[in-house]
Amino acid sequence: MLSARDPGFEARVRASFARQQFMTLLGARLERVVAGEVCIRLPFQPALTQQHGFLHAGVVTSVVDSACGYAALTLMEPGAAVLSVEFKVNLLAPARGREFVAVGRVVRAGRTLTVCTGEVRALPEGEGGDEVPVAIMQATIMAVRERGGLSD
Amino acid sequence: MLSARDPGFEARVRASFARQQFMTLLGARLERVVAGEVCIRLPFQPALTQQHGFLHAGVVTSVVDSACGYAALTLMEPGAAVLSVEFKVNLLAPARGREFVAVGRVVRAGRTLTVCTGEVRALPEGEGGDEVPVAIMQATIMAVRERGGLSD
Amino acid sequence: MLSARDPGFEARVRASFARQQFMTLLGARLERVVAGEVCIRLPFQPALTQQHGFLHAGVVTSVVDSACGYAALTLMEPGAAVLSVEFKVNLLAPARGREFVAVGRVVRAGRTLTVCTGEVRALPEGEGGDEVPVAIMQATIMAVRERGGLSD
Amino acid sequence: MLSARDPGFEARVRASFARQQFMTLLGARLERVVAGEVCIRLPFQPALTQQHGFLHAGVVTSVVDSACGYAALTLMEPGAAVLSVEFKVNLLAPARGREFVAVGRVVRAGRTLTVCTGEVRALPEGEGGDEVPVAIMQATIMAVRERGGLSD
Repeated sequence: MLSARDPGFEARVRASFARQQFMTLLGARLERVVAGEVCIRLPFQPALTQQHGFLHAGVVTSVVDSACGYAALTLMEPGAAVLSVEFKVNLLAPARGREFVAVGRVVRAGRTLTVCTGEVRALPEGEGGDEVPVAIMQATIMAVRERGGLSD
Repeated sequence: MLSARDPGFEARVRASFARQQFMTLLGARLERVVAGEVCIRLPFQPALTQQHGFLHAGVVTSVVDSACGYAALTLMEPGAAVLSVEFKVNLLAPARGREFVAVGRVVRAGRTLTVCTGEVRALPEGEGGDEVPVAIMQATIMAVRERGGLSD
Repeated sequence: MLSARDPGFEARVRASFARQQFMTLLGARLERVVAGEVCIRLPFQPALTQQHGFLHAGVVTSVVDSACGYAALTLMEPGAAVLSVEFKVNLLAPARGREFVAVGRVVRAGRTLTVCTGEVRALPEGEGGDEVPVAIMQATIMAVRERGGLSD
Repeated sequence: MLSARDPGFEARVRASFARQQFMTLLGARLERVVAGEVCIRLPFQPALTQQHGFLHAGVVTSVVDSACGYAALTLMEPGAAVLSVEFKVNLLAPARGREFVAVGRVVRAGRTLTVCTGEVRALPEGEGGDEVPVAIMQATIMAVRERGGLSD
């Protein structure tokens, strides 16, 4: 069980997410925020598609990158900011559905680097139906302190 | 030197790019399209930023993923469609600037799988200034034929 | 629950592993082989170390790559062979310990491409002690059929 | 052009490489060591193969990981040690040949993290013949200072 060093981590994550203008453009909503895990929900919109009408791989990546970055932030002390160092995404199936759920989880939290895994699942069109995994991510997030006024 | 099997590859790539509604949402423009290499240009907009005011890593990924996918498509025969299998991105510097240029290049073109590398450079704010590399990508693209009516 | 299409998958995996001369050189042993999951055990040896005396990252990668490849093979029909297309490894902690356990698991099995995740854990030196995760992998494996006489 | 901060970087890299017992086991030799770039050569041996008689992907990864790590070390001040944080490898072709050449190059050198790209080429069996690219790597290397007595 991962424990947070900042009792106010949830409010901090929610305030930072609200400043991600790109998440607003996508229509993504921050859902669960617990120590070491963050969930983001994204409704389908045609404006987010690639040439075959599926969600663009970059959109899938965007929401799971934010989920991983904020999962890392939940475990950091006040004043630290997060930057994505690198990530790798495997696209498991075409991203179609009425809604998408991205979850980021901390696998290892170091002082400087945090490693996360993430996944994105699609909720099928129409009512009911099983969630379909559409992507998995492995990501490295860096804690930045006292640099250029960055904060989260 | 890579050679195209479809003499009409440029028109095919441009038509497919025009169907990527997400590139329109980002404001990305397709520039150079040659056999094995594609370039996409993206002007900065506040709507594309993360919490520190830099371009969101997902936006950086989106344009270089499209550049890699279309670089792969330039070498495929008519009727084949491309899907991203996986990619990995290293973010080299905060993505700030007035404009960003993403280039995707084919490293190995197989019948089923094509491997590409990509990079994104930032043009600094204001006039002049050197381009700054902000990201590199290594990607695997799959050719899809006669499946579910996909085409590019 | 993943199901095997070849009832003789375990014997097939064990016979193929026995032909991996490099696993013999490392001193790696194939342990659990079930549908969609394979486990490999590697005792520590000084000959496998990098300059600080930890297991070389390439050794860590080798055993978890074999574990992922054979996890993919457990689900393939007789006659298919596996080749690693690509993988990504995050090294979570210095790989020190008396023994290492690598597990590969299938996340998605397609006709051509299989996506696996893997992990490597270290058993600490001396008796007892908790296992320590030292690496995680995300990998793409390709099924090869009727090509150049490859078989597994 | 990258410049070294330690005029004795080449001797430092060669001494550290000599302590990598695993490189000795593989039969790998350190060749060119210049600021920001390192080359390692590996003769083929049956003991390094996977089940089809090609070089095991883990062997390919091992030499290019060492090449990338030492490329990063060429640019660090005396006293810093390098650890691989993560890497991603695409295998472009079966690794067959009489000898393999791995090159690691620094793409971005930061105080804490260095990003490298690497490639492995195969020299075909017999005399002459063109080199064949068999793998490319994208890697993140961390500088470690004053930790647990690590040094390079």
